[in-house]
Amino acid sequence: MTVHGVTPFNAEPPRAALADRVLTPLDAFYSRNHGPIPALDPGGWRLRVDGLVGRTSSWSLTELRDRFGSHSETATLQCAGNRRAGLVEVRDIPGEAPWGPTATATARWTGVRLADVLDDAGVDPAATDVAFLGTDVSEAATPPQEFGGSIPLRKARMPEVLLAWEMNGEPLPPVHGAPVRVVVPGYIGARSVKWVHRVTVADRPSQNFFQTSTYRLLPPDVDPARTAPGDGVALGLVAVNADFLAPDDGAEVDCGPTRVTGYAFAGGDRTVVRVDVSPDGGSSWIQADLGEQAGTWAWRHWSATVDVRPGEQLVLARAWDSSAALQPADPASVWNPKGYANNSWARLRLRGRSAHTA
Amino acid sequence: MTVHGVTPFNAEPPRAALADRVLTPLDAFYSRNHGPIPALDPGGWRLRVDGLVGRTSSWSLTELRDRFGSHSETATLQCAGNRRAGLVEVRDIPGEAPWGPTATATARWTGVRLADVLDDAGVDPAATDVAFLGTDVSEAATPPQEFGGSIPLRKARMPEVLLAWEMNGEPLPPVHGAPVRVVVPGYIGARSVKWVHRVTVADRPSQNFFQTSTYRLLPPDVDPARTAPGDGVALGLVAVNADFLAPDDGAEVDCGPTRVTGYAFAGGDRTVVRVDVSPDGGSSWIQADLGEQAGTWAWRHWSATVDVRPGEQLVLARAWDSSAALQPADPASVWNPKGYANNSWARLRLRGRSAHTA
Repeated sequence: MTVHGVTPFNAEPPRAALADRVLTPLDAFYSRNHGPIPALDPGGWRLRVDGLVGRTSSWSLTELRDRFGSHSETATLQCAGNRRAGLVEVRDIPGEAPWGPTATATARWTGVRLADVLDDAGVDPAATDVAFLGTDVSEAATPPQEFGGSIPLRKARMPEVLLAWEMNGEPLPPVHGAPVRVVVPGYIGARSVKWVHRVTVADRPSQNFFQTSTYRLLPPDVDPARTAPGDGVALGLVAVNADFLAPDDGAEVDCGPTRVTGYAFAGGDRTVVRVDVSPDGGSSWIQADLGEQAGTWAWRHWSATVDVRPGEQLVLARAWDSSAALQPADPASVWNPKGYANNSWARLRLRGRSAHTA
Repeated sequence: MTVHGVTPFNAEPPRAALADRVLTPLDAFYSRNHGPIPALDPGGWRLRVDGLVGRTSSWSLTELRDRFGSHSETATLQCAGNRRAGLVEVRDIPGEAPWGPTATATARWTGVRLADVLDDAGVDPAATDVAFLGTDVSEAATPPQEFGGSIPLRKARMPEVLLAWEMNGEPLPPVHGAPVRVVVPGYIGARSVKWVHRVTVADRPSQNFFQTSTYRLLPPDVDPARTAPGDGVALGLVAVNADFLAPDDGAEVDCGPTRVTGYAFAGGDRTVVRVDVSPDGGSSWIQADLGEQAGTWAWRHWSATVDVRPGEQLVLARAWDSSAALQPADPASVWNPKGYANNSWARLRLRGRSAHTA
């Protein structure tokens, strides 16, 4: 793993660890944290459900499972900072980790449906949002506070949103939110709050620091040190995105037909319907072969064969989602002061090694 | 109106007719048809609901309204061919009307919720899609057939999807689907089937010509005359888009500060959160002032003041939606053989007239 920070622990795997498989092994799943990892006793864990509900309630893990049954969804999580390194190449982004393209991963999540828990509590007609609060305390917040965030009630009522205790058939590891985390498919990873202990129904978005003051898209000319809560736009849904997984960026490869692979992902209820690959920096394009679509909420792997010639070569990839949305070409056009949501075309620099120089 | 065809009737208004108002007057609402306008007697109209339902049913307009009540939504419709003219400038698109930027409009729609009608019928668990069939027969289809299309069941169950008999408080005019049309907010206009007489729940998308063989995104190198049903990707959700409404493209205007206005729209459940305007062809950008957001399903008007200088000047606009998706810059990157879904940056050519030449 490339470790961007030890405490809080932030790390992403090498590209090859994600290549050619829909489900990501737990040890290759990126880790993005804002405070120390809590060590929680599953037997003592409880979830409080409160706010604009008919009945405030509190649940143990066993009670949740017994009452609402278990459901599974295959879903990709993507950090809002994924591919920030591509923005840093345009203009420096001080104080933010230069995540590469692997702050995204996919698991089969198992838990109860948040919708069922909300139905049981009885949602007030005035409610518009559902907030989550984790157990991890972030010293990076102003003031220091438990990590939190919210999603629209409309999304919270969808069957794919889970309070999950398993990923890929194994109990959640502590670093991924044990004993229970929220999983909000199609939204930035930050909304899938780990170590969740409270669900609050409200008539406005969460007032947590990580909803009001960070994970926000700011205009390029704004100094993030001088913003007020609510400035910019809260991130949530994930726009169509893609990157290469093999070969590595900057790799030297033998000249001739070379297989390139990658992932593409579309948030919300959109799916990836096409991926184009250019072997020559955008002069010509071929269509990639698309891998399995493991449900609405999962990324899609793809591959293409490009002809590698001697010397430097820029290979591009761009994905289309089911709304016919294409990624924007230029990282400069999406640059923003906190370096979020880089979904510009993927760039892979290869160096062709000809047979007689090998 | 610019009339692209008389029978079927296809027309769009001048830009100015859409400027600076959220709701579009009925006489400025674009018209896209595939056959002659049916003349239907509202008293004799019936809607059949069939397919994968517990109970096939048939409803008069009065029965629908009495049983399910009336609901209203403000929603923008956008033709999949909107802004095709910008693609034609890249490469000709024979046989398709060169729609400008006004094949989109917004109304306050009133009708029953499709979700309520489906609940009443009882949807089979195997169902995945809901198909609509209109009364208009299209000779352009192979073979000639009533116009139809489908949407995913998940969308059909959302409260914003209506079987509507009013727009802007007036009965639907015949050209807009009287007595009843479907309104699918956030989807291409083609799925809002007019003169609807049948709703069919199914386990696959509609097999109607307008679902399987047109309104599909084809790769650029495909000859649309040689495609088979199912080729390419069915359009549905609408990607973030924008264009100018004033001044007119190519206008000669006095030099100095000039107000430019336009619309922006994001399909699905996304909204427009930011619009950037460049007075100088993309060298610099300012943020437009955003108008009212009349609910999740409506476009958003915007305005900005740019400094017009003597001579030719290219003004650009680009919108961002609530997933942080930005429109792609280049119409060439989104060009496709049928000319659908052009959501590249809006371009406005102005000619600055200096005071002493006026």
